[in-house]
Amino acid sequence: MSIVIGRGKNSRRAYGIDEIALVPGARTLDPSLADTSYSIGSIKREVPIIASAMDGVVDVRMAVLLSELGSMGVLNLEGIQTRYEDTNPILDKIASVGKSEFVSLMQALYSEPVKYELIELRIKEIKENGGIAAVSLTPLGAAKYGQIVAQAGADIVFIQATVVSTNHLSPDGIESLNLAQFCQEMPIPVVLGNCVTYEVSLELMKAGAAAILVGIGPGAACTSRGVLGVGVPQATAVADCAAARDDFHTETGKYVPIIADGGIVTGGDICKCIACGADAVMIGSPIARAKEAPGRGYHWGMATPSPVLPRGTRINVGTTGTIKDILIGPAKLDDGTHNLLGALKTSMGTLGAQTIKQMQQVEVVIAPSLLTEGKVYQKAQQLGMGK
Amino acid sequence: MSIVIGRGKNSRRAYGIDEIALVPGARTLDPSLADTSYSIGSIKREVPIIASAMDGVVDVRMAVLLSELGSMGVLNLEGIQTRYEDTNPILDKIASVGKSEFVSLMQALYSEPVKYELIELRIKEIKENGGIAAVSLTPLGAAKYGQIVAQAGADIVFIQATVVSTNHLSPDGIESLNLAQFCQEMPIPVVLGNCVTYEVSLELMKAGAAAILVGIGPGAACTSRGVLGVGVPQATAVADCAAARDDFHTETGKYVPIIADGGIVTGGDICKCIACGADAVMIGSPIARAKEAPGRGYHWGMATPSPVLPRGTRINVGTTGTIKDILIGPAKLDDGTHNLLGALKTSMGTLGAQTIKQMQQVEVVIAPSLLTEGKVYQKAQQLGMGK
Amino acid sequence: MSIVIGRGKNSRRAYGIDEIALVPGARTLDPSLADTSYSIGSIKREVPIIASAMDGVVDVRMAVLLSELGSMGVLNLEGIQTRYEDTNPILDKIASVGKSEFVSLMQALYSEPVKYELIELRIKEIKENGGIAAVSLTPLGAAKYGQIVAQAGADIVFIQATVVSTNHLSPDGIESLNLAQFCQEMPIPVVLGNCVTYEVSLELMKAGAAAILVGIGPGAACTSRGVLGVGVPQATAVADCAAARDDFHTETGKYVPIIADGGIVTGGDICKCIACGADAVMIGSPIARAKEAPGRGYHWGMATPSPVLPRGTRINVGTTGTIKDILIGPAKLDDGTHNLLGALKTSMGTLGAQTIKQMQQVEVVIAPSLLTEGKVYQKAQQLGMGK
Amino acid sequence: MSIVIGRGKNSRRAYGIDEIALVPGARTLDPSLADTSYSIGSIKREVPIIASAMDGVVDVRMAVLLSELGSMGVLNLEGIQTRYEDTNPILDKIASVGKSEFVSLMQALYSEPVKYELIELRIKEIKENGGIAAVSLTPLGAAKYGQIVAQAGADIVFIQATVVSTNHLSPDGIESLNLAQFCQEMPIPVVLGNCVTYEVSLELMKAGAAAILVGIGPGAACTSRGVLGVGVPQATAVADCAAARDDFHTETGKYVPIIADGGIVTGGDICKCIACGADAVMIGSPIARAKEAPGRGYHWGMATPSPVLPRGTRINVGTTGTIKDILIGPAKLDDGTHNLLGALKTSMGTLGAQTIKQMQQVEVVIAPSLLTEGKVYQKAQQLGMGK
Repeated sequence: MSIVIGRGKNSRRAYGIDEIALVPGARTLDPSLADTSYSIGSIKREVPIIASAMDGVVDVRMAVLLSELGSMGVLNLEGIQTRYEDTNPILDKIASVGKSEFVSLMQALYSEPVKYELIELRIKEIKENGGIAAVSLTPLGAAKYGQIVAQAGADIVFIQATVVSTNHLSPDGIESLNLAQFCQEMPIPVVLGNCVTYEVSLELMKAGAAAILVGIGPGAACTSRGVLGVGVPQATAVADCAAARDDFHTETGKYVPIIADGGIVTGGDICKCIACGADAVMIGSPIARAKEAPGRGYHWGMATPSPVLPRGTRINVGTTGTIKDILIGPAKLDDGTHNLLGALKTSMGTLGAQTIKQMQQVEVVIAPSLLTEGKVYQKAQQLGMGK
Repeated sequence: MSIVIGRGKNSRRAYGIDEIALVPGARTLDPSLADTSYSIGSIKREVPIIASAMDGVVDVRMAVLLSELGSMGVLNLEGIQTRYEDTNPILDKIASVGKSEFVSLMQALYSEPVKYELIELRIKEIKENGGIAAVSLTPLGAAKYGQIVAQAGADIVFIQATVVSTNHLSPDGIESLNLAQFCQEMPIPVVLGNCVTYEVSLELMKAGAAAILVGIGPGAACTSRGVLGVGVPQATAVADCAAARDDFHTETGKYVPIIADGGIVTGGDICKCIACGADAVMIGSPIARAKEAPGRGYHWGMATPSPVLPRGTRINVGTTGTIKDILIGPAKLDDGTHNLLGALKTSMGTLGAQTIKQMQQVEVVIAPSLLTEGKVYQKAQQLGMGK
Repeated sequence: MSIVIGRGKNSRRAYGIDEIALVPGARTLDPSLADTSYSIGSIKREVPIIASAMDGVVDVRMAVLLSELGSMGVLNLEGIQTRYEDTNPILDKIASVGKSEFVSLMQALYSEPVKYELIELRIKEIKENGGIAAVSLTPLGAAKYGQIVAQAGADIVFIQATVVSTNHLSPDGIESLNLAQFCQEMPIPVVLGNCVTYEVSLELMKAGAAAILVGIGPGAACTSRGVLGVGVPQATAVADCAAARDDFHTETGKYVPIIADGGIVTGGDICKCIACGADAVMIGSPIARAKEAPGRGYHWGMATPSPVLPRGTRINVGTTGTIKDILIGPAKLDDGTHNLLGALKTSMGTLGAQTIKQMQQVEVVIAPSLLTEGKVYQKAQQLGMGK
Repeated sequence: MSIVIGRGKNSRRAYGIDEIALVPGARTLDPSLADTSYSIGSIKREVPIIASAMDGVVDVRMAVLLSELGSMGVLNLEGIQTRYEDTNPILDKIASVGKSEFVSLMQALYSEPVKYELIELRIKEIKENGGIAAVSLTPLGAAKYGQIVAQAGADIVFIQATVVSTNHLSPDGIESLNLAQFCQEMPIPVVLGNCVTYEVSLELMKAGAAAILVGIGPGAACTSRGVLGVGVPQATAVADCAAARDDFHTETGKYVPIIADGGIVTGGDICKCIACGADAVMIGSPIARAKEAPGRGYHWGMATPSPVLPRGTRINVGTTGTIKDILIGPAKLDDGTHNLLGALKTSMGTLGAQTIKQMQQVEVVIAPSLLTEGKVYQKAQQLGMGK
């Protein structure tokens, strides 16, 4: 439904995952019967949760652990891991510095150049330990490092920018990455993102994307919306891009999965993204809380170290358990941040969805969990602040 | 009205009780003239408020007290009361443990098996003291303990799960409870829930439910929405299920009462649930605040002790008065949490409703009590924080 | 527009004054040209602001002061002033008692009977000091004390209950006040309220009301909505009742002013109520902040001392200036709570409204001042809490 | 779409910039390719950000610095700068006084008369140092000081009141400023404001405005909405006035830029105002945070010193960097308040907008950044308050 903001400026309402809830139907099933698997190209995973390519979230060890648990972690190839051979002192420093020094420290640390040999080394370390070598590059990085990534034996590459398009205008003398050509030349699946609309995701699929990352603006460590004004609430973005996937599939027979990326904190958030049409989700902060996460209880966005316009904040997420506790449980916390897979399976059971495809079809209601007076009262009670 | 979340994903707006208010009409009446009674099967009660089957809310003594006051309390037959003969040290421990140890303590305490003889004992203790023996079981528990419950002399049984359906798929080798068969075989009224839609409540009525519990997600101690993404705001859920009751009544001549369960904190909440179509309400946290409540000022959800995916939190609700103060007054507090029956009668007087059926017909407006700037200002004033 | 809460339960959206804002048009005028006067019967006032009949707000001295300033204050004839000859120690006690003892103290203090001779005395005290003797009674009190009020020389009487109707059902043996008969028999204007709908205000006008009090639920010291679930947001209530006034005027030639009562805190609130159709407003808490207010910086609702269901809270509003500062300025505070008349005149100037009738016609937009993230950020800045 | 507030009171929904977000389209471009320039009359600027005519924001030095950076600062000719020759002790006092003495201090300081010779002096100081002499007057001040401003060599004058109209009614004996005549007689561009509607901005353009200031009520230091009830959320106001600009341009061939003024805090806010149709923005509090700002870390509105109805508050915005850090970067903070131009250029790149005109056409969605429970949770995490 078109909404008039003012004369001649039409708009539409977009919905966030905080504004929706899932409705049980006529059937329920035992959670053990829920099949949560999905595939990108020939890579099939049981856990439809991917760890974000963030320096506080995934290093070699985490990538291997996640692979073992049926999940996948993406290693950022333009971050700490490929700028420094020994990342421990670097990560210690990031975790220990005060708020006021943080931005300038990050700018300094990330001015160290990315090294070809470290790209090779990290990919090999993951492979040698039996992990899936999922790695990420920016479009600029893809032009530069794409070949070495393929040669080093990576299994899948994520080409990721805040906003990606197939039609990027560069200054004279700098050539833009041709995404279609890149996808064609790479011998491994190429995941593209991020985008938020039907039209752009369709273009990315036509360019040869193996999967699409959906989400601009909603993440906890992301300040795109505050700094740039840019973003689309995730429920609407996922539903629109999933519609592009279905139309592309009908037309071409190719099924390009949709990965919801950003703003996902609890098991309920994962369930809701899939119910809006996602095949899998990408999460950062929930994984950063694992004991094994490189961030030492901290989490920061990929645009944080920008020398000109730093965006994204360092968040103290704390450490709440092992990656196993968080991902596949059993849960040691009762707030929905442990056993994310169990939460998904239980939700699917409750909703009678046996597969991810069925989960994408469940009924959704608009039900904003706004902070009403009643809820503030309840919260106060929960905190023992009742009158 | 259908709302488009994104291409191909339609939805509708659902409303919570915090978003509505009741509108006085052309008639008023003296509160003493309001008849609040309702019936489930042959059990008629003057107070349309049922205490939840939660271990912090109802034990034998509370069940008896509530019966005496014209109300009813449901004893959880798969909780502390049937796992331990002497529950005092157990409840003391739950109330004294720190936040970080709580989940693991609960998991340990609830791994003690349920005992047939304690099921019998608790039912008999209630009956011997003149109370209504209202008890609850999960669907799994119903298959196991249904017969003994009937033999022990229970008056009414609540078969309750987060989400219940007449079509539950179990893993091979485990048989699902046939709800229709169970209702038919039990010699006492069987209340079924929880559900939130017209369709499912109609199915449950057809299966022989004596009453329907309506509510998924809205409770203070419930984290279904956060952990599973599942839930329907209560005003919409109650209205939809009440419509099923009315249609079923028209078709079959059987009147199956609707019990709103979850998220009810004040007298106003009770009034609003009935105005949306409920015949009675089920409440936990307001009762947990009684001096006589087993929880010692604490309250926790039924999914809290899950070994795999603990949900629901322990809430410190405090102790604010006797169960008589809270239920039928006179009130000793001025915030709507004492004399819940008096609040309902006064509201009915204000709205000119002489019976629960008339109260179900009063005019409702959508009037979100959102936290606007003005209200924050007022709140600040109330707290003496004015500039 | 009809909104479906659930099957068969229709509703409509009602708006509060926090959700609207006023739109300047093609004309502006100097505030000194704004005529703010209105009349009830033969009583004409320059200041369309009436002080509520609350014991913390109006006593004899305040009634006289308000009359001198062009306003009016209503004395509660069933409160402290008519139960005690010397009210000072009583008011001191109310202001000094702790939160936990407050409800029981109020219940005790208000169990002292109302005295006929004090009703006479208070009215005479106001008249002797040159004030307008505006007084209030409940419907029950009206039956009992109506005659003495008239004889003592009151100028105007407010018959006020949380919700009033022309069709009140009483228990056997107790007769309801016949409002039409009462209005006819009283030799002075009778103001009736509170109500919130077109239909009821029309009935009250037909019964002979000299003015209508509009507002159920929105006040700061009022907990009708929390305790009873009852209330209609004020912008909608005022607009609906103003429509009844206009239709009644067209039909009968009689103009019955609408007084918006409840939830009004700032000058902007007053302006918005008039823009929705009110002729005047009744306010409590802003007046309670005057140095001369009997409440000693405290404010409480009329249902607070109920022996059975106390509602309304004591609010610590503080003391911020003289009644002249607050009502007609000049302001000594910059937050909209001083010089309420000046704010109204400035707003009328800004909006090009020369009279209250013109102010009732100004353009209104729906513009919720919700607590968005941006506003929280701004607030934090204002409080010096910026990062 | 018309919304019924109550019978006979129609309204429409207006949107604020907190309620919208910008949607990336099929094209992206490198930020360096974004052309952000705009013109008022013959004055062309690279930075479409104007510093507000507020005493805590712009003095002679700031006006010169802003000119050098490609921006513009407006000097308030009826404030501290023209009442006192040596403003340092005055500004020190404003920054040091306590909250309770602030209003009376301001009223006293601003009762010192404005001096013709200081008006001349300030304009000359700016010109001698190579700055653009942009100055502001109220409509009353324009009548009095207009001629001297032109003679002293000002480059552009802003005639600004909370609400301006071409049809202002003054008391007998006082003549209103004829805006059309004033614009015609002044040899320099005259900017007029503030307004919020299509109709009034069209009238102002017809009167000869060189640009229009749009915004009533949304500013951080502005309490128009609280005190007067007056205001229109900025996204709607800007879109409506931009439509008037486009229609006026089509009809007359004259392009009168729209300047969004008020409530703009971050880079994202600037981007969103332009996306709604603005050509440039006017900001106060973000500039007040510069080391070089005259306010010493404080910021206050122009209606603050009113002797009768003081509005606007002093806000402690703190000092976060140089004006260069804030305006054109590089940013030293990561929260969107540094490098505002860089944020705009990055946003334009992301959205594929090469010019301000293209940026005015980008897609906008309604996406309220409400404080949902999920966001409170995220915020708590960010503040290290996670459970």
